[in-house]
Amino acid sequence: MASLIHSRSDGVFVIAATPFADSGAVDLDSIDKLTDFYLSFGIDGLTIMGIMGEAQKLSQDESLAVMKRFLQRVDGRVPVIVGVSSPAFDPMVSLARAAMEHGAAGVMIAPPPTVKHDEQFFAYYVAACKALGPEVPVCLQDYPAVTGVHMSVPVFSQIVRELPQVVMLKAEDCPGLTKISRIRALEAQGQRRVSILVGNNGLFYPLELARGADGAMTGVAYPEMLTEVYRAMKAGDRDLADDLFEIYLPLVRYETQPGVALAWRKEILRRRGAVASARVRPPGAQLNKDEHDDLTRMMARIETKLAALKGAR
Amino acid sequence: MASLIHSRSDGVFVIAATPFADSGAVDLDSIDKLTDFYLSFGIDGLTIMGIMGEAQKLSQDESLAVMKRFLQRVDGRVPVIVGVSSPAFDPMVSLARAAMEHGAAGVMIAPPPTVKHDEQFFAYYVAACKALGPEVPVCLQDYPAVTGVHMSVPVFSQIVRELPQVVMLKAEDCPGLTKISRIRALEAQGQRRVSILVGNNGLFYPLELARGADGAMTGVAYPEMLTEVYRAMKAGDRDLADDLFEIYLPLVRYETQPGVALAWRKEILRRRGAVASARVRPPGAQLNKDEHDDLTRMMARIETKLAALKGAR
Amino acid sequence: MASLIHSRSDGVFVIAATPFADSGAVDLDSIDKLTDFYLSFGIDGLTIMGIMGEAQKLSQDESLAVMKRFLQRVDGRVPVIVGVSSPAFDPMVSLARAAMEHGAAGVMIAPPPTVKHDEQFFAYYVAACKALGPEVPVCLQDYPAVTGVHMSVPVFSQIVRELPQVVMLKAEDCPGLTKISRIRALEAQGQRRVSILVGNNGLFYPLELARGADGAMTGVAYPEMLTEVYRAMKAGDRDLADDLFEIYLPLVRYETQPGVALAWRKEILRRRGAVASARVRPPGAQLNKDEHDDLTRMMARIETKLAALKGAR
Amino acid sequence: MASLIHSRSDGVFVIAATPFADSGAVDLDSIDKLTDFYLSFGIDGLTIMGIMGEAQKLSQDESLAVMKRFLQRVDGRVPVIVGVSSPAFDPMVSLARAAMEHGAAGVMIAPPPTVKHDEQFFAYYVAACKALGPEVPVCLQDYPAVTGVHMSVPVFSQIVRELPQVVMLKAEDCPGLTKISRIRALEAQGQRRVSILVGNNGLFYPLELARGADGAMTGVAYPEMLTEVYRAMKAGDRDLADDLFEIYLPLVRYETQPGVALAWRKEILRRRGAVASARVRPPGAQLNKDEHDDLTRMMARIETKLAALKGAR
Repeated sequence: MASLIHSRSDGVFVIAATPFADSGAVDLDSIDKLTDFYLSFGIDGLTIMGIMGEAQKLSQDESLAVMKRFLQRVDGRVPVIVGVSSPAFDPMVSLARAAMEHGAAGVMIAPPPTVKHDEQFFAYYVAACKALGPEVPVCLQDYPAVTGVHMSVPVFSQIVRELPQVVMLKAEDCPGLTKISRIRALEAQGQRRVSILVGNNGLFYPLELARGADGAMTGVAYPEMLTEVYRAMKAGDRDLADDLFEIYLPLVRYETQPGVALAWRKEILRRRGAVASARVRPPGAQLNKDEHDDLTRMMARIETKLAALKGAR
Repeated sequence: MASLIHSRSDGVFVIAATPFADSGAVDLDSIDKLTDFYLSFGIDGLTIMGIMGEAQKLSQDESLAVMKRFLQRVDGRVPVIVGVSSPAFDPMVSLARAAMEHGAAGVMIAPPPTVKHDEQFFAYYVAACKALGPEVPVCLQDYPAVTGVHMSVPVFSQIVRELPQVVMLKAEDCPGLTKISRIRALEAQGQRRVSILVGNNGLFYPLELARGADGAMTGVAYPEMLTEVYRAMKAGDRDLADDLFEIYLPLVRYETQPGVALAWRKEILRRRGAVASARVRPPGAQLNKDEHDDLTRMMARIETKLAALKGAR
Repeated sequence: MASLIHSRSDGVFVIAATPFADSGAVDLDSIDKLTDFYLSFGIDGLTIMGIMGEAQKLSQDESLAVMKRFLQRVDGRVPVIVGVSSPAFDPMVSLARAAMEHGAAGVMIAPPPTVKHDEQFFAYYVAACKALGPEVPVCLQDYPAVTGVHMSVPVFSQIVRELPQVVMLKAEDCPGLTKISRIRALEAQGQRRVSILVGNNGLFYPLELARGADGAMTGVAYPEMLTEVYRAMKAGDRDLADDLFEIYLPLVRYETQPGVALAWRKEILRRRGAVASARVRPPGAQLNKDEHDDLTRMMARIETKLAALKGAR
Repeated sequence: MASLIHSRSDGVFVIAATPFADSGAVDLDSIDKLTDFYLSFGIDGLTIMGIMGEAQKLSQDESLAVMKRFLQRVDGRVPVIVGVSSPAFDPMVSLARAAMEHGAAGVMIAPPPTVKHDEQFFAYYVAACKALGPEVPVCLQDYPAVTGVHMSVPVFSQIVRELPQVVMLKAEDCPGLTKISRIRALEAQGQRRVSILVGNNGLFYPLELARGADGAMTGVAYPEMLTEVYRAMKAGDRDLADDLFEIYLPLVRYETQPGVALAWRKEILRRRGAVASARVRPPGAQLNKDEHDDLTRMMARIETKLAALKGAR
């Protein structure tokens, strides 16, 4: 069994899609294929049942089945984080308990839209952590563009001080670079360290690593971009990191269109053989003809540019 | 079995709370008591599993159990509408099917926050109705203060034209009086009629009846206010309707404070003997000492004023 | 010249409408009439150039002319607060300077929508106060329903601690009763006192006074309701305060409909002879036939009930 | 004098910054320098007094002075669009009149946040166009990320049908590619043609041109990117367009961080000698040390990659 997530967790945690058959049913076999696909790139962890995992479109039974299948296939090789955000604590706690029992490494929680200021932000995490119990490691997701909730640096410090089980930050505020720098600066002055993995579809990935992030947690369908940029940065070769990253940037940029990313990524995964169908459960956009053509063009340009980069080095 | 809701449904549909024990568990016995309490005032219908019913805090099994218990106790005496709003169609459809199988009179659906303009509004209801099947009567909930989604009169006309199963509007836009007048005016010119029941905690209730609403659907813990005002208006005695309504208005006004209504109403129901406990599942506000005192004062003033009104008549 | 606003300012500050002629031009003569009307009820202050004053619809020259005329007519008999909220500091500071030079008692500032959490909230007021200079007394407007900005009690304490020129809070959070109680409790423990005047159209007025508010600042077109309720509460007669308040509550409740209050109040002021025209500058709703009828009915019911109350006492 | 904007206007309209001195005063000399800088790249038009032009931070007199100076320096060589969006019609109309009198080619109007659905959207532009008069050409700005207002394709068709003076769309919805395709498809079926210039910081620029956009209207501080990509697309060389665009994409991507773009672009303009100072009026972010370093690195990489591209061709 993989160890729990902790304040030094680093590298690339890929956010997994939930594969459906063309019929709309959960496709458990594709969960195996997809898991193998992700692991083949040397990723450091997996996050399942997030927004990208269409968690809210699953019945309770399906949620459990999807979770178990992922955890079974990963089989402890890398830590698996389970998204458990919910408007209410009862469903959150029962999902979190099931996840930890089946071998999850921790849970991820985004604040609900009812949180309006720092005091409520802090109170929410105090209550959520109490409901979960102190033994469940928590990744706090800071994604205001989706949640509508804004976290200040001081309230995050308060959480770090009071809630030791919050060991990881999924950083996807925008602008967010200075936020990472400020948290690292506070840690240099003695604040408890947390792992910072960046999201935002990876749009600012090398810049964020340069500010002190520990890695990425996002769902881009080219995990090799995430792992190779990470290794280049670790090796101190920022030019290579940027060169690699910028090959994928046009595609990453396309995914930042709200409502497009999910269908787009599932189609890439399908084209790359990682899932049997690109099906998205309704309501949810499907790619139209033009978007398919945009994707074909972008995937081809990635191949061409990768070849050129390898040739040049 | 009660008939289905239809375009002439009228009177008072009370939105039911979901009773919990002090432990937080669903209190099925209190569902019976509460149902009896509501029915004792001569209400015309019941709506369960709405926001006020804390639907999103229930597990799937609890949802089914609560729904069945209400339907069983009502036993066809009045129509029961079940709230099935969901970010995804799969959970919505399975809940709606279970509801109709157990004797519900229809379902209520609010638009999801992803709906941003008229075209998306219409497309959402087309897709939702298709997913439900044409035999399920739908009450469309228009509550922008909570959903963040705004419905224009023209897009509602389009829905009325194209989706015959939408037979009822829960009208709680604010300002909303002119909207009701405009819909009724369009019906006078030939637009298909829909039942309009008003919500907004009843804050504009007699004014809305005067504009042509067919009744109310709200959760105020004094159902007799809703039924007696309705009867006075039906009898053409608007002064009496206003006199009665204004006795409860200070309390109704208190409930309009976002986040307060639920705890407030459950406490009134508890004080009136309709449920065993005022418990609200977290996260959710509990009444503090000052709020209890406010409530005590307001309940006493209602009694005094009712006595004075009866004396005066 | 009236003294400046300060941390013990109390009573009723009426928010003044800006009168226009039917042509849409600023009606300076009606400013005199309106000022006299307000003062005739024994109000304790006036607030001009707020949202209700249609400040953003005035040219710079018109703003100055309106401000000067109000200040001239008031002539120091009561303090006048000038709304100077602006997305930028330059226009805010020049308007504030002009106001103070012409005899204003202070300025009112609401936070801009760019403020997203406590740290930004505090930083905004630090920067605004620095831009104004320390000699300008500030009333902080806390009105999340309109600004979209939420103020926590702790960040307000921080402002009270660091910015002595913030001497007044316009309290219109909702729910807001507990907020008032908490601030007063902190003051009992040594926090610097501020004046708290309540807004929210007066919807919770006697309840707020009971929690320790110092008075009201709102634009209801029956200033006598505000002053008489205040005096009754001061005299310790809470029943009378409630009885009086509840006579006006149906009308106050009508005004809470977003976008309706302004036209509604201007029409009441016109009917009461306080302004020559009910004109609202576009874009802005005009009352339709039904709304005129609603108003006529409500004004008549107020008269009847006032007579009954006086008869009963 | 330049002709008015019209339904076939195309090419690159740069959104101009408003230069301030380090003191914060408007820097009229830098307006001349900046205008010359923009024109030196062969742009097709200029847009002044937009959000990027810090319009809302200018006094009325400053607004007029800035507008006149730009129009004077351009001297009819390219059309100049003036942003006149305002919460109220009176200030909008007086600014628009002054602009047209001094030689502007048209005005740009974004909808106010009070617009909530299609019916209100249409009514707003009907009223605004009526207030302006039919002789003023209008560019409709569709930028929901900033305005919070969403425009459907059908309501835009209604506007095109009813308001002939709306001749241009600033397209910056996101996702927005399909919207452009749909409008062009409707035009192919007979809908009146409008000019479509794309914004969104240029993040999807070549993709949008491929969908039928007529050009760009954005404020990126490398106008040569905008003009050269446009020419490559016009010449049918999409690979060159993409190659060029992708050199600047890391920088363009950086600018999409809300609140960062303005300071960032002004600093680039300063470094490139187009303005004397990068000053942004408060409240508004200044670049910190890390951001300066990010910029230095990105500008250097642009130079390197441009050289490589030229070498390769």
